[in-house]
Amino acid sequence: MLSTLIELQRLKRLDRTGWTLRGLPNGTESVAAHSFGVCVAAMLLADELLAKGVAVDVEKVLRMALLHDWAEVRVGDMPRIATAYFGADARKQAETRAFVDVVSDLKRDLYTALYEDYEQRTSLESRLVKAADILDLLVQLLALERAGARGLDEFWEVAKNPNFQLGDVADGIVRDVFQAVLQARSEIA
Amino acid sequence: MLSTLIELQRLKRLDRTGWTLRGLPNGTESVAAHSFGVCVAAMLLADELLAKGVAVDVEKVLRMALLHDWAEVRVGDMPRIATAYFGADARKQAETRAFVDVVSDLKRDLYTALYEDYEQRTSLESRLVKAADILDLLVQLLALERAGARGLDEFWEVAKNPNFQLGDVADGIVRDVFQAVLQARSEIA
Amino acid sequence: MLSTLIELQRLKRLDRTGWTLRGLPNGTESVAAHSFGVCVAAMLLADELLAKGVAVDVEKVLRMALLHDWAEVRVGDMPRIATAYFGADARKQAETRAFVDVVSDLKRDLYTALYEDYEQRTSLESRLVKAADILDLLVQLLALERAGARGLDEFWEVAKNPNFQLGDVADGIVRDVFQAVLQARSEIA
Amino acid sequence: MLSTLIELQRLKRLDRTGWTLRGLPNGTESVAAHSFGVCVAAMLLADELLAKGVAVDVEKVLRMALLHDWAEVRVGDMPRIATAYFGADARKQAETRAFVDVVSDLKRDLYTALYEDYEQRTSLESRLVKAADILDLLVQLLALERAGARGLDEFWEVAKNPNFQLGDVADGIVRDVFQAVLQARSEIA
Amino acid sequence: MLSTLIELQRLKRLDRTGWTLRGLPNGTESVAAHSFGVCVAAMLLADELLAKGVAVDVEKVLRMALLHDWAEVRVGDMPRIATAYFGADARKQAETRAFVDVVSDLKRDLYTALYEDYEQRTSLESRLVKAADILDLLVQLLALERAGARGLDEFWEVAKNPNFQLGDVADGIVRDVFQAVLQARSEIA
Amino acid sequence: MLSTLIELQRLKRLDRTGWTLRGLPNGTESVAAHSFGVCVAAMLLADELLAKGVAVDVEKVLRMALLHDWAEVRVGDMPRIATAYFGADARKQAETRAFVDVVSDLKRDLYTALYEDYEQRTSLESRLVKAADILDLLVQLLALERAGARGLDEFWEVAKNPNFQLGDVADGIVRDVFQAVLQARSEIA
Repeated sequence: MLSTLIELQRLKRLDRTGWTLRGLPNGTESVAAHSFGVCVAAMLLADELLAKGVAVDVEKVLRMALLHDWAEVRVGDMPRIATAYFGADARKQAETRAFVDVVSDLKRDLYTALYEDYEQRTSLESRLVKAADILDLLVQLLALERAGARGLDEFWEVAKNPNFQLGDVADGIVRDVFQAVLQARSEIA
Repeated sequence: MLSTLIELQRLKRLDRTGWTLRGLPNGTESVAAHSFGVCVAAMLLADELLAKGVAVDVEKVLRMALLHDWAEVRVGDMPRIATAYFGADARKQAETRAFVDVVSDLKRDLYTALYEDYEQRTSLESRLVKAADILDLLVQLLALERAGARGLDEFWEVAKNPNFQLGDVADGIVRDVFQAVLQARSEIA
Repeated sequence: MLSTLIELQRLKRLDRTGWTLRGLPNGTESVAAHSFGVCVAAMLLADELLAKGVAVDVEKVLRMALLHDWAEVRVGDMPRIATAYFGADARKQAETRAFVDVVSDLKRDLYTALYEDYEQRTSLESRLVKAADILDLLVQLLALERAGARGLDEFWEVAKNPNFQLGDVADGIVRDVFQAVLQARSEIA
Repeated sequence: MLSTLIELQRLKRLDRTGWTLRGLPNGTESVAAHSFGVCVAAMLLADELLAKGVAVDVEKVLRMALLHDWAEVRVGDMPRIATAYFGADARKQAETRAFVDVVSDLKRDLYTALYEDYEQRTSLESRLVKAADILDLLVQLLALERAGARGLDEFWEVAKNPNFQLGDVADGIVRDVFQAVLQARSEIA
Repeated sequence: MLSTLIELQRLKRLDRTGWTLRGLPNGTESVAAHSFGVCVAAMLLADELLAKGVAVDVEKVLRMALLHDWAEVRVGDMPRIATAYFGADARKQAETRAFVDVVSDLKRDLYTALYEDYEQRTSLESRLVKAADILDLLVQLLALERAGARGLDEFWEVAKNPNFQLGDVADGIVRDVFQAVLQARSEIA
Repeated sequence: MLSTLIELQRLKRLDRTGWTLRGLPNGTESVAAHSFGVCVAAMLLADELLAKGVAVDVEKVLRMALLHDWAEVRVGDMPRIATAYFGADARKQAETRAFVDVVSDLKRDLYTALYEDYEQRTSLESRLVKAADILDLLVQLLALERAGARGLDEFWEVAKNPNFQLGDVADGIVRDVFQAVLQARSEIA
């Protein structure tokens, strides 16, 4: 277990390249800090779904949110545009192979199953974690822009017409939060 | 939900003061990055317990690990020695009040119940999360010392005679991991 | 003397949490750098008072400005809102106990007397140092906003209706400088 | 020309992930700073070759050293181990496609030709730039270790048995410098 | 050669003081990163000159761009205003002496000759490198302002009425790029 | 007064180049943080002198310690070796001219008189501040080495045979503290 913990601890220092490539300081957000944010957003969304009567497996949601970026400790936090050069499928396959290696000492098929579910968006939970992934990005964007950062318009594209195919009730919940972020952004002087 | 997400996102930038007060650079580890590490350690420990036949509620473990440091967004990451000046009980009460305020918009009693359980170490899950909290500290310490950091001996005290009262099997698992960290440390040149 | 110097040197790295919690980069301002700024502001204010005929003990002002944040090396730079959870009196008492411990090796009652005077705002000098403390905050705020930082409006509240009870002449001097900062801020594009 | 300059300027902030993944602080070395180091090492090596009578095209060497990492502005600074998951050929092809896009506005076939020459190690100059790339890594390693960094042994592997196929004279020059770095390392206390 | 490489590697960490003095974070731009930017701008400008039929020695341009700031490893990156206190000639002479010492182990008169040519702006190539030096500053400024930085107006002064005495064709090329930067700046919201 | 405060606030971000040139991270110590350290060391030394019966003007000591590095906001924190290229006298004269300009708006001859006294080491107080300047350097060195930094031997040279010509009693006090720092260093593993 220890060697895996030691390796994953490296995500605490790995910068999210989206920010540094756009001129924000090193240390703006680590992959670990982002994963924390995704877990938080996922738990809050899941509890809202539960409150509205949508069945969701919160343990599965939290496990998946926690491990969805572990492959980056081997392949780095590749910029979004990199996919255009590697190909979406090749990138996914490479990251899956990296993930499998990261957890290989643990001998738990569950982790790989969760990772593949997330990559394929098979389950409701995987699609909810994807929504949380985007939501954490938007909240971080909002915080950066409130603190004075500019030049990040391209990132906001993902907030338009969100459709995570979570069913009518859950999609509505997500849409409302996204709308609230956009509203908060429009109020920045 | 959004205002809570915005506030918790601040933990991504809040430095763990233990490192900066000992001369390590700003940005060494954020509270959010530490919380990610605790979640990871908690999940791996919980799954090891399950594999060894110890019943543990993983959802509860993950929820608790995720939120155990949320109060710091209001009171900061106080150095350990600060407790000597505020008093252990007064500090816990203040942090609990801060936590209650942080989650007040969410109107979910569950979060406060989990926080109080953690603070009181009532459940097995709360004691397991505490073990994970210490384990993440040790793994971070090991990583820093492997990278050349020195002068952190005082932190290693917590690794001695760990007793988290998890029952014989679980305590044995935790003790083995702690032993492995100490062994790895002794091999640093 | 050495052990005290070694401990106080830690303030050079301790971030002022007000900035990092609002999304500014780690390293924006250390407690030591802020203390330097308070000393500078205090000396310039004191010399202006002297020039206008107000008697003020500059040595006392400088000593007090220099040591007013030493307790933070033990309790950290707590966010302002933390006071709501600990209670103003309990916080002051804890910080005073911390200060006493920080300087205990020096065996100089003078330092503790100056600290308590500052905390109680007993003397003219202590109130002048408080004015300098706020002035340095405003100048730092102005510098950050000129460099592009935003979202710091709440900090500017302290600049409104300053009344440090320094007597008419001295209050007028402080009010003029505060007015000049606000004017400079209004000119930021 | 401007859009290309704006994009390449981003390399000034992009961290070399080798360091951050091993626990060194963000900002340890940017890709731009590394490219500067490779240019310097390449020029000094080339001038030494010239002095020893080996014909080398210095303009070509400097152009190639300057542009050899430009693709990273699109694909990031991938950790070495990432190659195991993407495949060496697929990675090279993706990076070449990225490079072609980076320089596409300039409409200069020369740049792509130099990049491909470097990737294929076709010319003496390309192999000399590769030697300079490794030499800058070693000098950076030495500087980090002299400053107290540890845990970087794996990087030193590249210094063993260097063979850049530059011909006897030039290989001897490179071997001597590498030997000097190893010697300097052995003298670190 | 090694001792020179070790010393020059220090430029990777030396901050350009222009940014930090104006409130931008440490690590905004190192001298090495700037030198990389100047080399890139110089190569692109030189190739544009060649394409338009202006004879220019690209090897000389690249060598000069690469080494033009090496003296700073001994005298630091002095703020522009420092020249007013040291005197322009005294500053140049001191920097030249520092440069000579930096390269003294290499025993290559060429480097000193290139440095002096650059300082005196004797050749077309030296004037082109100066244009590239300013162009990199402008591109960095543009990137910082696009990312939200403000308060940098004074730096833009250098973009007005550029006249590098490169001859009509080359001056026109440089003027067009400068104009494009100013245009891009005017489009920042 | 405000324009002077705004300018001096810049020292909070200006790195001490001695550290960054030796491979320590940006942000290791600002000029403002160092000045805070010198003020602290100066006050503690002065109070020790008073306790041992040596007459010393503490107000003068604190004023001088506070302003002794203000010129750096105009000329930067030049590396020690830079003096060899500018000449010690020329450097002092330039820095004095810079200091005079920094404080010119304040119209207080006292500040310039204190600065010149410090530069000339005329008074006992100026020599005591110099001792405090070195003492703060040693304490910072010790803290960095305890935290794992290496390669800083050259800085320790200043601790050998300290002779600040403070008179027998005061020299003895300073020598004892220096000896204690050296002793503490020798105990670093």
